[in-house]
Amino acid sequence: MKALVFREKLALEEVPKAIPGPGEALIKVSIAGICKTDVEISRGYMDFQGIPGHEFVGIVESSPDPRQVGTRVVGEINVGCGNCSQCRQGLERHCLSRTVLGILGRNGAFAEYLTLPASNLVCVPASLPDEKAVFVEPLAAALEILDQVAIRPTDRVLVIGDGKLGLLVSMALRPTGCDLQLVGKHPRKLDLFARLGGSVQVLEHFSGSEHGFDVVVEASGHPSGWEFALKMVKPRGTIVLKSTFHGSFNFNPAPLVINEITVVGSRCGKFAPALRLMESGIIDPTPLISGSFRLEDIEEAFKRSVEKEYIKVLVKMT
Amino acid sequence: MKALVFREKLALEEVPKAIPGPGEALIKVSIAGICKTDVEISRGYMDFQGIPGHEFVGIVESSPDPRQVGTRVVGEINVGCGNCSQCRQGLERHCLSRTVLGILGRNGAFAEYLTLPASNLVCVPASLPDEKAVFVEPLAAALEILDQVAIRPTDRVLVIGDGKLGLLVSMALRPTGCDLQLVGKHPRKLDLFARLGGSVQVLEHFSGSEHGFDVVVEASGHPSGWEFALKMVKPRGTIVLKSTFHGSFNFNPAPLVINEITVVGSRCGKFAPALRLMESGIIDPTPLISGSFRLEDIEEAFKRSVEKEYIKVLVKMT
Repeated sequence: MKALVFREKLALEEVPKAIPGPGEALIKVSIAGICKTDVEISRGYMDFQGIPGHEFVGIVESSPDPRQVGTRVVGEINVGCGNCSQCRQGLERHCLSRTVLGILGRNGAFAEYLTLPASNLVCVPASLPDEKAVFVEPLAAALEILDQVAIRPTDRVLVIGDGKLGLLVSMALRPTGCDLQLVGKHPRKLDLFARLGGSVQVLEHFSGSEHGFDVVVEASGHPSGWEFALKMVKPRGTIVLKSTFHGSFNFNPAPLVINEITVVGSRCGKFAPALRLMESGIIDPTPLISGSFRLEDIEEAFKRSVEKEYIKVLVKMT
Repeated sequence: MKALVFREKLALEEVPKAIPGPGEALIKVSIAGICKTDVEISRGYMDFQGIPGHEFVGIVESSPDPRQVGTRVVGEINVGCGNCSQCRQGLERHCLSRTVLGILGRNGAFAEYLTLPASNLVCVPASLPDEKAVFVEPLAAALEILDQVAIRPTDRVLVIGDGKLGLLVSMALRPTGCDLQLVGKHPRKLDLFARLGGSVQVLEHFSGSEHGFDVVVEASGHPSGWEFALKMVKPRGTIVLKSTFHGSFNFNPAPLVINEITVVGSRCGKFAPALRLMESGIIDPTPLISGSFRLEDIEEAFKRSVEKEYIKVLVKMT
């Protein structure tokens, strides 16, 4: 099968077709989405080697559960051991010996076929087209914030970063009724959220008051975003670290202690709420799609995905 | 009056007697305690200049509230503006224009007299001797953790650091019934908590399991404590940053995000719970007292307070 492989650099290669292990299904990938994490992986994040990609929708070609065969599915990307205390709590995504599709010890979705345990697959409702279903994983990750932090309708919330993550987080948090501002550097990206009726500001002309926000979500992935979050959050407020990025920065813990800030790291979420919110029409992420490429052109798709004008780039496998 | 003054270095000086401003009481200090924050101030923390010291018990010499005169008091150290949204919520300690006794814009307790708003003073019950009452402020700061983080009786809790802060935090959290371990480098200090029936471990021989603790309190004030906390906290667990220290360290945010760790900065707390817990006998911090010095010997007291053998050093003003 054709697949994008990362070994020092990304390259489209012909590789042996994925073979499902015990309990696993074989899925023919229809569409995969390029995430910032994939780009970070291509820069060394997680020391991953192999086929990246973890946002997908596809058709089950074979499965230990015969009812799945032929159905359209998305897949929870974390595969736990099933036996540890984390897995027993339904927190397979925190199993210490987990693998993660296209991120940790398991080949991913930038290929014609992928394998996942049958128990990881979630059937996609007929009303959701592939172009929406492919957003289940990143939308679930955005909604994970609400699984961790109680955001009240009266809260003032600032989302930093107008990339695909910041935009999706803004979409995910807005239905709480909170007073949400999205701040970023790119008027055209901000405009996407503004056109949905959201409140946006360009960083250069930002007029929000310092220490004025109950919750600040750092979704820019830049150390400057962290500094900005610290400046904007209220005493006793919460900063959500939503970006995964590769690297370190200099950190002075005193402001955290003095202002009693809570910092919450946030990663993957459960798929069911994301599917419900898209099915109900409350959240429609498709305006974020900037381009769609064929698998043959995936190297080009990666290049585009980091350009300023591009938000979500999809890759069609067939 | 005699006072310890910090200007580039600490020195005992004869200074004009403190004069209460509008709404303020004049307090004759009986005993003051030396806190790690005072030592950090002498190293440049908060850019404070003047008389440090914020842990005290004293007698009211004059007050706008005549009922206070002659009573024995402790004092909330944060003085808010009284008008902002923080102050209106009872969070004067987070007022953006606050002063803080001996820490920020307000002379402190290492002197014969200090001034504080009458409304900051809390009467000390007759059953509490001065040597206990002087612990109200640091014990309130330790209990602040429970105002911020719900610690359940079934939680596994690790406290890092066997200095006065770590010991007091351990004493404060133990009545929750949680499974608490105190880890530090100094067998003699650890032994203090062990003699109260607490569970202690020397860092060198630490046998706790990695990612095994629901809550980890960093009370060592060293960057290595932060690294250790990250290693010991469970996925989705909480690290409490309790130390104030002067400086920065290199920080890789990825583990926070990947393991969805919550980091909570924690500073000052309300006095009432600390008084209740000492009055009821549930917490008795007096075993932490390592030495008691006269004001004349306060420079010596500071030197001692940073020595390995010393925990809490008190200064008697009269």
